[in-house]
Amino acid sequence: MIDWIADYLATVEQYPVGSQVQPGDIRAMLPEHPPTEAEPFEAVLADMDRVVIPGLTHWQHPNFFAFFPANVSYASILGDLAASGLGVQGMSWMTSPACTEVETLMMDWMQELLGLPEKFRSTSERGGGVIQGSASEATLTSILAARWRATGGQVNTNGDTTRLVAYATSQAHSSIEKGLRIAGIGTGQIRAVPHDEHFAMRPDELARMIEADIAAGLIPFWVCVSRGTTSSMAFDPTAEIAAVAQPANVWVHVDAAMSGIAALAPEHRWVNEGMEHADSYCTNPHKWMGVNFDCDLFWTADRAALLGALSILPEYLRSKAAESGAAIDYRDWQVPLGRRFRALKVWFNIRTGGVADAVAMIRRHVALTQEFAEWADADPRFEVVAPHPLNLVVVRLVEGDAATDSLIERANASGRALFTRTVLDGKVACRVSIGASGTERRHVEDGWALLRELA
Amino acid sequence: MIDWIADYLATVEQYPVGSQVQPGDIRAMLPEHPPTEAEPFEAVLADMDRVVIPGLTHWQHPNFFAFFPANVSYASILGDLAASGLGVQGMSWMTSPACTEVETLMMDWMQELLGLPEKFRSTSERGGGVIQGSASEATLTSILAARWRATGGQVNTNGDTTRLVAYATSQAHSSIEKGLRIAGIGTGQIRAVPHDEHFAMRPDELARMIEADIAAGLIPFWVCVSRGTTSSMAFDPTAEIAAVAQPANVWVHVDAAMSGIAALAPEHRWVNEGMEHADSYCTNPHKWMGVNFDCDLFWTADRAALLGALSILPEYLRSKAAESGAAIDYRDWQVPLGRRFRALKVWFNIRTGGVADAVAMIRRHVALTQEFAEWADADPRFEVVAPHPLNLVVVRLVEGDAATDSLIERANASGRALFTRTVLDGKVACRVSIGASGTERRHVEDGWALLRELA
Repeated sequence: MIDWIADYLATVEQYPVGSQVQPGDIRAMLPEHPPTEAEPFEAVLADMDRVVIPGLTHWQHPNFFAFFPANVSYASILGDLAASGLGVQGMSWMTSPACTEVETLMMDWMQELLGLPEKFRSTSERGGGVIQGSASEATLTSILAARWRATGGQVNTNGDTTRLVAYATSQAHSSIEKGLRIAGIGTGQIRAVPHDEHFAMRPDELARMIEADIAAGLIPFWVCVSRGTTSSMAFDPTAEIAAVAQPANVWVHVDAAMSGIAALAPEHRWVNEGMEHADSYCTNPHKWMGVNFDCDLFWTADRAALLGALSILPEYLRSKAAESGAAIDYRDWQVPLGRRFRALKVWFNIRTGGVADAVAMIRRHVALTQEFAEWADADPRFEVVAPHPLNLVVVRLVEGDAATDSLIERANASGRALFTRTVLDGKVACRVSIGASGTERRHVEDGWALLRELA
Repeated sequence: MIDWIADYLATVEQYPVGSQVQPGDIRAMLPEHPPTEAEPFEAVLADMDRVVIPGLTHWQHPNFFAFFPANVSYASILGDLAASGLGVQGMSWMTSPACTEVETLMMDWMQELLGLPEKFRSTSERGGGVIQGSASEATLTSILAARWRATGGQVNTNGDTTRLVAYATSQAHSSIEKGLRIAGIGTGQIRAVPHDEHFAMRPDELARMIEADIAAGLIPFWVCVSRGTTSSMAFDPTAEIAAVAQPANVWVHVDAAMSGIAALAPEHRWVNEGMEHADSYCTNPHKWMGVNFDCDLFWTADRAALLGALSILPEYLRSKAAESGAAIDYRDWQVPLGRRFRALKVWFNIRTGGVADAVAMIRRHVALTQEFAEWADADPRFEVVAPHPLNLVVVRLVEGDAATDSLIERANASGRALFTRTVLDGKVACRVSIGASGTERRHVEDGWALLRELA
């Protein structure tokens, strides 16, 4: 299996980037009913090539310019393997102390490596961090903590969320609306704060909305500051938003799921600007740091609110260590009870040189993105439709929506590259996300050549 | 790493079952700050022995009688490894069709292997299944679907959950209250339905409560049928509960996170009794089938409610395959957006003989549990305090709570075995969960000898 993975990663470039199958094709290659006899492992491995590979969209392909990066390092794969093999549960400190303590240490190491505020450290008076599965879960956790704080804990008893109001721009990730909906904040209580011409939140509009909601007897409770939006990588101004939100007791959550990792490189540490005002923050090593999914880092400056929102203590989960306050029980920091030893993949990655590797990769991706933007700027058929400070550039054909749609569709169908379609201010556009660990200049050139040919 | 895991699993018996460290011990063995130079992998591996092993509570230890089993098979470890190496995202069909289609097929295979109703198959008119991370997440998803159905979808808009009422016994898992709280159902809206002398829900009491809540203008919307409670493995009567709940439009969720896997063995298929009435169901191969965490199987008979509750479709996630209805986008079947290729570990496990292995293991565990119960029955110092139809037996010292508490504490401190304390009807008791894949008769004998010595 290890050899198969190494071969796969070494040769992934040979495959069409996006899977070319139609719905039902993969299932049709497999038996409708489970086998009654054991098969040798070789037969299973052979089906990885025969069945699985044709059904993959290759996120590790160097010509993968779609969605967001999801790169993997060998060290992190081995860390994850160790977690699978140990098969321990990290729901409480006592169910495997190392699972909790290595995780806490990794969160502190990452706070340091990313240059985040001290108030997020486990050793701070009121803050701390936890590894979650995804930014969606971190966002939901943040919403729950904010909901608890805004209602003085009452929501745990009366479940009344009807007066709570949340704020984000239309550019915020879909997981924001999903998390709010789950927590009982309907679309009628979610304000789409207008953005400026660069798709970043306008603090003056936020101020106006908060004021109106308070005047209407509502309770503004949570705002999402997107640092690197999905469609165009816009950066909402954290400090200005916090200056408006915090006097109104609105919890400030900063979502930099993709871009936050750029802070590993000192010259990109500007992504953290204003973070000293955040009540919570999340970023994903599983996007741009070579730590394989799932690995979201979530910090809060107010762990009491988190625990207030999520602690439930039945008899069978009690322990002296936790009750004395000496130990962290991470089950109270997340939605699920059970949890893998995810810290191992972060630990393995950092110790074997993963930070230097990630910094080199991030610098290469950012430089290539700037080059791509220059090429698109220089071609009169294309326009670059948003700022591109990091590794995402969004382009469209000046000819219009239909032409741009057709371009993306034909490019993706070619199998030579994969892009993601989006709509910015009503106009169809093509996201070019440069983030696979194998992506070199020639792959970006190839992607650009493809778009030019098809244009 | 593979060799290290194989050695670990072959020799895990040598370690104290519960970690003997104190809070802070593990962290104190590690550098406070991240390394600035890359270390060789050998150094990392050496720290697995030096630092991690002493900090583990060994869930794979054959004398692990605590919590619930979390056993792992080599095939599933390799399936999980494949998922880590491929690094693909299964949030949508198009982001890797194989990830979705193998998962759908595995859910259908498992429906068949467990003997579950046809209405849960992906090919049924209204149902289907999905792999989630944990039963906590499956429970939450079920609550959200029920919430949507009970409010005609209004909750997505107005977020009003204040009239909704949910039902479970005091014996239901803590994740039930946690999921309800997350979804905006406060403790004031959660009814603890009285249980009978065997800790199973009383349908007559449920009927009385539902009637009273309707009379009070409230909306009963969800009931949890626990099939195998955590404290004592009590089985709520599904059919009788459904007969009361469904006429009142109450969603019936069946939680058999641990016990449901027993249905792999035909003689234990009674655990499914009444399942034809369930609106949703979950059970965990990561507990008792050798598929390593995380792997929860969640089925619903009403996928429209699930999609209604959780679908959010931004431009960058649209695809023709999904919009035509030909493909499943599993992101709409769960809380997070991102998802691993979890189906691989189920597929690898089943194909290499995992079902026969699991059936043999389950039979051995159930038989050993019955033996243990006989030993305890025969010793006048002990009493067995609840029925033990499967692999959990709960005992206490007739001497009383203090003696039982002390017994558990000394047994666990010995490192020779690990048990979990619980409280049943106000009395302290010791859960003996027999479920590790390496547990043979001699380990159970040893556990019993330990309790007798210390008593």
